Amino acid sequence: MKSTLSPNNTFLNINLNKILENYRIVEKHLKKGCEVGAVVKANAYGLGQEQVVQALYQEGCHKFCVSNLDEALQIERTLEKEIYLMHGIGSIEMAEIAREEGFIPMLNHLEQIKIWNLIAKEKSEKLKAIIQIDTGMGRFGLSNTEIKKLTTDPDLVSNIEIDYIMSHMSCAEQENHPATVKQLQEFKKYLEFFPGVKATFANSAGIFLGEDFHFDMVRPGCALYGINPTSSELNPMNSVVELYGYIVQKRIIEKEQFIGYRAQYKATPGEKLFVIECGYADGYVRSLSNKGICYAEGYFLPVVGIVSMDAIIVNASALPTALFDEITHIELLGEHITIDDIAKYANTISYEILTTRFGNRCKRFYISDNNY
Amino acid sequence: MKSTLSPNNTFLNINLNKILENYRIVEKHLKKGCEVGAVVKANAYGLGQEQVVQALYQEGCHKFCVSNLDEALQIERTLEKEIYLMHGIGSIEMAEIAREEGFIPMLNHLEQIKIWNLIAKEKSEKLKAIIQIDTGMGRFGLSNTEIKKLTTDPDLVSNIEIDYIMSHMSCAEQENHPATVKQLQEFKKYLEFFPGVKATFANSAGIFLGEDFHFDMVRPGCALYGINPTSSELNPMNSVVELYGYIVQKRIIEKEQFIGYRAQYKATPGEKLFVIECGYADGYVRSLSNKGICYAEGYFLPVVGIVSMDAIIVNASALPTALFDEITHIELLGEHITIDDIAKYANTISYEILTTRFGNRCKRFYISDNNY
Repeated sequence: MKSTLSPNNTFLNINLNKILENYRIVEKHLKKGCEVGAVVKANAYGLGQEQVVQALYQEGCHKFCVSNLDEALQIERTLEKEIYLMHGIGSIEMAEIAREEGFIPMLNHLEQIKIWNLIAKEKSEKLKAIIQIDTGMGRFGLSNTEIKKLTTDPDLVSNIEIDYIMSHMSCAEQENHPATVKQLQEFKKYLEFFPGVKATFANSAGIFLGEDFHFDMVRPGCALYGINPTSSELNPMNSVVELYGYIVQKRIIEKEQFIGYRAQYKATPGEKLFVIECGYADGYVRSLSNKGICYAEGYFLPVVGIVSMDAIIVNASALPTALFDEITHIELLGEHITIDDIAKYANTISYEILTTRFGNRCKRFYISDNNY
Repeated sequence: MKSTLSPNNTFLNINLNKILENYRIVEKHLKKGCEVGAVVKANAYGLGQEQVVQALYQEGCHKFCVSNLDEALQIERTLEKEIYLMHGIGSIEMAEIAREEGFIPMLNHLEQIKIWNLIAKEKSEKLKAIIQIDTGMGRFGLSNTEIKKLTTDPDLVSNIEIDYIMSHMSCAEQENHPATVKQLQEFKKYLEFFPGVKATFANSAGIFLGEDFHFDMVRPGCALYGINPTSSELNPMNSVVELYGYIVQKRIIEKEQFIGYRAQYKATPGEKLFVIECGYADGYVRSLSNKGICYAEGYFLPVVGIVSMDAIIVNASALPTALFDEITHIELLGEHITIDDIAKYANTISYEILTTRFGNRCKRFYISDNNY
């Protein structure tokens, strides 16, 4: 689907309808009663926190996960939302702001728990929190020793209402990784220390591993934004973004010559090239040099030479002359070139492609049936 | 140098004084009479177009290069500036806006020249432009055949005042690359077709190759922002940015375990780790997984495991206990870990590190002796 707009620059279409379709696909997969805490950190994976939160909210999603206080403060809060701070609160000052704003921190270590409990005590309140435990990711969360301290000293959480016990999976998107089963077992073991408390474990990949991973809330991120959350199946999600690169210049090579920085591609006479307004400063990462592939009206066109800061060069020799002459934009990402394709060419993961300034500089169009 | 501010999050210091020092270093290198057109495209290489332009302007720089109309329109224009559009103008509509705003396009091919000349004719004006010719970069600029057409048909530029003839170097930062001399020869040959017209050839690296490359204007970008513009010498430029990563969590490993996504690092009992609030969504690119190095009070600390979207994990075992306990931030980039170091660890170039959302999400502090 092409935007009806055809500006003289590179543009990004962000399809909010597709994000909502993905949200519904996730919901359909869930165990009965399991809720969704949509992950909208990193500016909703680069796609616009404001627009994504608003769309999801109207669809019925009222729980949102962000990484820290700064991101949470950017969410519009006139309507009731539960906003989880994944990095927790690191100081009394941060805790006071979080409390005032009604945010729910994920408490990742004893120091954070102490701060939150202290603030709650001072205000003579019970304050909600998620408690994260480490089951093998080794990043955020309480260690085995800390969990034992917590369960043997109820004073530590005397004024905390534990909303969920949480853990995060390290290898969920890798097929049959032994860490996945091991983490699940650890998680269930620790949950026994917290009878009656709700639990949240699965990220997008975890959701598609089955109901055993769902517990009371799941935290989809990548799946909402169209990244394949399964390890080996066809992508069940809808593609959400389309990036159309504007052709600044068309060249027909006159004599053999090198192309681009560091002379890493040699073009031959008659070769047809497009110079596209999109470079690594637009998130078209430099590791796509001589590796990226673009698409135009039935033809796949390779990136040639090194990706520049503001431009790539594409071999368009495959195009019929009339098409070469007329065309103004080519698909850098969309129906034919998926995020997962680009990540593969660039030797990274789709998440990095989405969040790395992707299309930040170009014009953005939000496609939606509703008015946001 | 540490910022006096110590917020509970990751923060970026951008030192405008150092950018101005770099500007003066560039100026000192220049042939007499040669001017500077500062390259401030891509949001001044990610450091903030508004602040950088304002600082440079007050320092006496009045010529600025951006990639396209959108970037040009973001520059504050109350004072007199010459703003060059490196991608030129691709339509009548764009040309009309550019003319109205007083921008000077770099005309890269005959079609752009025709459009600009047409607009000028319609308004019965002479309009300034830079004409770019391709001398071996193979990206923007007129081909040999197009240059001949232009020089044999003066009508094509009847209403254009050619401000500069321009070309761009492809291999200037590589020591003694044969393309560099060849491009210079080609450029000089083509200049003979445009007697009396000024010329501009060198980017940052070209400036440091000597006066023969300077002509009438140079176009420094990376050098202003502290990237080493020489191929093999010590960096003559000042470092401009410092990124201090906030420590969200400190861990002491209790039993052998994998760390981070995909279980790509195994930590052993007693190992001390920092979890830092800075991931690939902050421009700490994922290729730094198990490769990045950070710094704290005399100690170099390696990144362990895969870089997450919002966090990295660092092995802090080298730190004395008291320091491990007290420290709140570590240097991800600055005096001890330079942009060029990070680029080397990440297997890319410094330019990509700067422009890839680098520190976009964290708090930014501009350091300046003046008020901007």
